[in-house]
Amino acid sequence: MADVDKDKLVQFLLRMGDNTLILGHRVSEWCGHSPVLEEDIALANTALDLIGQTQMWLGYAAEVQDEGKSADDLAFLRDVWDFRNLLLVELPNGDFGRTLMRQFLFDAWASVMLGRLIRSSDERIAAIAAKAGKEVAYHVERSAGTVVGLGDGTEESHDRMQAALDYLWPYVGEMFESDETDAALAAAKIAPDPSSLRTDYDALVNKVLAEATLDIPAGKFGHKGGRTGRMHTEHLGHLLATMQYLPRAYPGAEW
Amino acid sequence: MADVDKDKLVQFLLRMGDNTLILGHRVSEWCGHSPVLEEDIALANTALDLIGQTQMWLGYAAEVQDEGKSADDLAFLRDVWDFRNLLLVELPNGDFGRTLMRQFLFDAWASVMLGRLIRSSDERIAAIAAKAGKEVAYHVERSAGTVVGLGDGTEESHDRMQAALDYLWPYVGEMFESDETDAALAAAKIAPDPSSLRTDYDALVNKVLAEATLDIPAGKFGHKGGRTGRMHTEHLGHLLATMQYLPRAYPGAEW
Repeated sequence: MADVDKDKLVQFLLRMGDNTLILGHRVSEWCGHSPVLEEDIALANTALDLIGQTQMWLGYAAEVQDEGKSADDLAFLRDVWDFRNLLLVELPNGDFGRTLMRQFLFDAWASVMLGRLIRSSDERIAAIAAKAGKEVAYHVERSAGTVVGLGDGTEESHDRMQAALDYLWPYVGEMFESDETDAALAAAKIAPDPSSLRTDYDALVNKVLAEATLDIPAGKFGHKGGRTGRMHTEHLGHLLATMQYLPRAYPGAEW
Repeated sequence: MADVDKDKLVQFLLRMGDNTLILGHRVSEWCGHSPVLEEDIALANTALDLIGQTQMWLGYAAEVQDEGKSADDLAFLRDVWDFRNLLLVELPNGDFGRTLMRQFLFDAWASVMLGRLIRSSDERIAAIAAKAGKEVAYHVERSAGTVVGLGDGTEESHDRMQAALDYLWPYVGEMFESDETDAALAAAKIAPDPSSLRTDYDALVNKVLAEATLDIPAGKFGHKGGRTGRMHTEHLGHLLATMQYLPRAYPGAEW
């Protein structure tokens, strides 16, 4: 195990795994509802990739925690206040454009983050990042392409994408917040300090949004509280009620 | 206990209690979201009345069942296939107009039904009907007034109320379906056969809808399956996921 306080390492792993778990669930809500069949399949595959990444992150979190819990226990038996995902990923899907804009804003961050984590001093984290990074490279290519296609599309699709960006942008800043957990992991060379990702993120996002003929909102206000668990939006509780229903109603059920 | 098969009596009580439970939950979803403060308070009070009636119906059902369960157990620990409510009450709220139209269509039925049940040969049922009937007399006065006010209101409010009626009407017929349970309860003079309520119901509903300048749809098709438990809509599962979250997540929790 890496040279860092165990609780802090678990916090980091929960942050990574809760992001992919909650976004994966949100994306899965599109299953059977997408505008065209190809997008339906693409979204379902994205959701599956994210849930697969969750198993790796939360599986490792459970191992480090060493309290006899499984990745499933962490996913299905925690309540709102124990989740550490970014607020961005728990927001309702909105229309197809907003879902893809959120996907792009997250994919861009994930691709930069995983690119750093493959050099983690923690070998397990480096291995997870290498595996997940391949999937995310494809995700960001696809979501960026859709953002450009819809942003630089018809007048209506452009307006919807601009509205999506205006709505979501205030949730982007939380990705780059740092606290003492981040500082400890950075010192142990386990994970980069989130603030150090901003330059690469902005370079990628600015390029894609410019190509999409979309304007980044000027305001500096940012919502936060998700990754620290201080305060989630009201939407997370409703998401968990649906996501956790089966294991809550039938404790210990197995296939 | 009345002169009828115990299981049939429980079925009847579940049908009554599940109607008020599910509609009560639906109406409570408006809390804090209504268009004006007075309506918000009125809807919350309606929801509370319905939940209070649920405690009486399901409390008696649990007693008759005599399996050591409470009204809370019946409300919070059954799954979709065990619910016996009308499909009408599990439908999503839609806009304010649709919510009030559904409320009126249900209140009208409840007022006729409870008016008969106060003469039930089962004293407990007669007593519950007497208590609930006073509340429902007020509910139907209020929901009928709103249906008239919005139906015979602006062009937009009229159109919305007509759309609500068109959407909800195919769910009205289920209120008057009869099966062997109903036949047994009618024979024992515990409850009226549902089909016998239709004349009084139509008289009340036709009068109010005419005053509201709304047209009753012509089609004869009716959705059913809720009160027999044969088939609920997809909406009930989502409603239960939210409604049952706390007792599912914290089994045995008490205030």
